[in-house]
Amino acid sequence: MKNLLIFAVFFLNAVNIFAAQDKNLWNELDDLKSNYQWVDLSFELSDKTPHWYGFDALEVKEKYTFENTGGVFLAHLYTLPGQYGTHTDFPGHFNPDGRLANTYGVKDLAYKLVIIDKSKAVAKNPDYQLTKQDVLKFETEYGEIPQGAFVAFRSDWSKRPASKYENKDKQGNAHYPGWSLEALKFLIEERKAAVIGHETPDTDSAVTGGDTMPAENYVLDSGILNVELLKNLDKLAPTGSIVFLTFPNVKDGTGFTSRVFAITPKNKKK
Amino acid sequence: MKNLLIFAVFFLNAVNIFAAQDKNLWNELDDLKSNYQWVDLSFELSDKTPHWYGFDALEVKEKYTFENTGGVFLAHLYTLPGQYGTHTDFPGHFNPDGRLANTYGVKDLAYKLVIIDKSKAVAKNPDYQLTKQDVLKFETEYGEIPQGAFVAFRSDWSKRPASKYENKDKQGNAHYPGWSLEALKFLIEERKAAVIGHETPDTDSAVTGGDTMPAENYVLDSGILNVELLKNLDKLAPTGSIVFLTFPNVKDGTGFTSRVFAITPKNKKK
Repeated sequence: MKNLLIFAVFFLNAVNIFAAQDKNLWNELDDLKSNYQWVDLSFELSDKTPHWYGFDALEVKEKYTFENTGGVFLAHLYTLPGQYGTHTDFPGHFNPDGRLANTYGVKDLAYKLVIIDKSKAVAKNPDYQLTKQDVLKFETEYGEIPQGAFVAFRSDWSKRPASKYENKDKQGNAHYPGWSLEALKFLIEERKAAVIGHETPDTDSAVTGGDTMPAENYVLDSGILNVELLKNLDKLAPTGSIVFLTFPNVKDGTGFTSRVFAITPKNKKK
Repeated sequence: MKNLLIFAVFFLNAVNIFAAQDKNLWNELDDLKSNYQWVDLSFELSDKTPHWYGFDALEVKEKYTFENTGGVFLAHLYTLPGQYGTHTDFPGHFNPDGRLANTYGVKDLAYKLVIIDKSKAVAKNPDYQLTKQDVLKFETEYGEIPQGAFVAFRSDWSKRPASKYENKDKQGNAHYPGWSLEALKFLIEERKAAVIGHETPDTDSAVTGGDTMPAENYVLDSGILNVELLKNLDKLAPTGSIVFLTFPNVKDGTGFTSRVFAITPKNKKK
């Protein structure tokens, strides 16, 4: 009987190992759709979508209409900057030798998502810069950030209307939060982060970005993806979600509008 | 000892059931990236990308250059039709009352993928229309097509250069394959397909589409998504893959360039 027990345990483990290496992906998808939450982290695309002030809004023209096609179809022509709405910046956006959109394969479209919540600090101080100390404190609570993660800064900035993103003072100076250079250096050099994400239109805070945007420059010079104008980070737990970062395969593209979405355990909101 | 054995079996099953309902998504992602193939089903986006003849090619302008930003950054302005390159058509493309891009949630971005391979029939006859009989024959080999699937017609048309997609004869008439209406009716009404996909720029074959495109009209009137200009269907087995169909959340959009990719078991090519 003891042998039978040992056999049973071995057999069940063998079944598990086999299942892990050759799962039925259709059943996996059913499970993910039925038992997990799917959360959109990207903005609707229209002329009202938040975007960096240096770009014009999306322009939409009717190319074919039901009227001019004998009632058959409707199709539009879109003009937009690569960095419009929720978007990915590729290293070539800041570095003439950096990688461009079409050098990424489809395995580069999914990551482990880590969300560092500094929304309370930002509510008190819109110039807040997420520090290395904030990252270390996060790790004491949630464990070490895994290699190759998508690390996002939750500021709740995305809850503002698009017109309030710059948050200008009476002198006309913008005030929005950003990453400190030392936090980014720790995440990229020590934790090997693959993607840096935030809700604001810039990696740098408004007060530290200036003309040269040192934080964004550091991220892109390091060959890391930079994702901007995210939303709904408040709907996810700090760890445990998968994030899909999907963008078209644009030849020589330095950035493009991206559909970013997470799959996350139900009822796991911190 | 017998009780211990029973306990061990129960315990291991309980662990499995628990794991199935609350898996560690980060481990799942590691497994999917390490032990499965990820295949891009979409074209690179450039002015050379295959597209329907009635649309102009992608236009790219430099909006900011390293020269005019003091060496800081490079950003482009893109002009493209919604239905450019690999793209999704939404029901509103053909039906004035049909759903538009921004009515789809992120759970609508992933499906079970079924690929019906009629590439040999198309090689013999470029006017080939996939029949209901082809679907029934497929089901005798691979089982009933599950509800809510993304059903794709593999024609190998995507192996042609973009300039040969229309395949015009000496009289100037185009010749490319398509779906028969009866096959579509069976897939949509009986099998409840959620997405119809193909490698050509149209749902209809060139010889049956005419000005009214009855097959595409039927698909979109049925409220089903229509995906065009796919590639790499020949790299996947007929069943068992998950397909991600990702597009931006375009307000009132009737179609948009999509990044379409599959996750598939390794070495499972038919």
